[in-house]
Amino acid sequence: MNHYVEGKLLIIGGAEDKKGECKILKRFIQEAGGKESRVVVLTAATEMPEQVGSEYKELFESLGAPEVQVLDIDERVSANRESVSQELQKATGVFFTGGDQLRITGILGGTRLGTTLHSLYQRGVIIAGTSAGASAMSDTMIVGGEAGTPKKDTLTMAPGLGLLHSVVVDQHFAQRGRIGRLLSAIAQNPNVLGVGIDEDTSILVYSDGHFTVVGNQTVTVVDASPTMASNVSEISPGQALVLTPVLMHILSDGYRFDLKRRAANINLT
Amino acid sequence: MNHYVEGKLLIIGGAEDKKGECKILKRFIQEAGGKESRVVVLTAATEMPEQVGSEYKELFESLGAPEVQVLDIDERVSANRESVSQELQKATGVFFTGGDQLRITGILGGTRLGTTLHSLYQRGVIIAGTSAGASAMSDTMIVGGEAGTPKKDTLTMAPGLGLLHSVVVDQHFAQRGRIGRLLSAIAQNPNVLGVGIDEDTSILVYSDGHFTVVGNQTVTVVDASPTMASNVSEISPGQALVLTPVLMHILSDGYRFDLKRRAANINLT
Repeated sequence: MNHYVEGKLLIIGGAEDKKGECKILKRFIQEAGGKESRVVVLTAATEMPEQVGSEYKELFESLGAPEVQVLDIDERVSANRESVSQELQKATGVFFTGGDQLRITGILGGTRLGTTLHSLYQRGVIIAGTSAGASAMSDTMIVGGEAGTPKKDTLTMAPGLGLLHSVVVDQHFAQRGRIGRLLSAIAQNPNVLGVGIDEDTSILVYSDGHFTVVGNQTVTVVDASPTMASNVSEISPGQALVLTPVLMHILSDGYRFDLKRRAANINLT
Repeated sequence: MNHYVEGKLLIIGGAEDKKGECKILKRFIQEAGGKESRVVVLTAATEMPEQVGSEYKELFESLGAPEVQVLDIDERVSANRESVSQELQKATGVFFTGGDQLRITGILGGTRLGTTLHSLYQRGVIIAGTSAGASAMSDTMIVGGEAGTPKKDTLTMAPGLGLLHSVVVDQHFAQRGRIGRLLSAIAQNPNVLGVGIDEDTSILVYSDGHFTVVGNQTVTVVDASPTMASNVSEISPGQALVLTPVLMHILSDGYRFDLKRRAANINLT
């Protein structure tokens, strides 16, 4: 086990292409085993599980997945049923839809299904999530916060699924102007790396602790570990942040980043 | 003469407070000489010069400026009149309003008034500008560009007033999600430092090459000089940018930054 990751994750910044090349979703099916795959879609995050579930089922089938099952788990009682866990056990790829990340953790956290998810992950089964499903991946997740100027206490955080360690993920990143809230998040503990993923963009995280960017926009990594001055412990709620210096990395499709070294693998692209 | 600056500049990110404490505008009057000041407001940027001009005249007078003159120069013929330059010559503080930065440079650039402005600046007279007036300060200025993901060619640049060297300024920065376009700008030449100024926030730049933040939000400095990998010369227009690593500094009121060292003066705050 290394510090950051134990299996394989595909973390998508939301609004992934579903009509054109479908680069990201195609990659998910490929990583799940392609024609040998058995995909499970978890719709826990959304309040429209039937619509969202059937959309992804059709999409994944059109991309060559022979077996796609939607598990519509919307309450903890279901998440504790052994029959449900047995269904998930068979998956070679798990996909979390968008919606509200607190629904994912609130429904799955501490249940039999949650435990099964972790065991799949440790067995190397790819776990993918888009939008809310992306945020939920990390130990601590962002659940809300304003766009705009980095300020203390404009964001709210909660415990996530704990699949990705020492990282906090934000999604719809550049599109919703979220650099400020991601900086506020890492200012609270610069040991945590901030990863902002744009729409129609994803990171494929490998168990050796590196990720590759897949998609059409950018991934922004912010690293406050070299920060020498911060006012996060002194200012009142709503006051403007100070954080200097911060290391930042802007990456696009095909570029690799090493979470352990906190640096891009420039020669490997 | 040092590399970055020759006189004193107050560069405001737009939407500065005009009703409450008026921290930034008050500082401008103070730097211009307070009760001994003679302020000239240049409305070249705006197409509503009378309204904007009289608003600032009233404001500055209410803040204690005894003599405020609005120079409504909206054509190059006027900018070449000796009488107009003689008016500007008497100023102890010059204030550029917002509007369109191309109007400022298109009207003033290469005129007698432009020359007079530079001579005032070199004499140490404070030159202030808000919004478009902020963008116009640098050698090369941003004149347009989308918010969102950093991409090649989503921004347009033009020659600025040339008061601030090796820096490109962006305004309404966090409020309009402009980090992407500022990164695109510095990617084109990492020798240039990017300074993004939020609304109701300013930098007071001194001739020794440092600035102090004045205002209620943040100033973001991005420095691509340490960048090891960039795709700016390879990608096609509209494609996502790569820039890694980039140094970033988030600063708020009272913090100082040394443009020569490209680092915050942490011990001096």
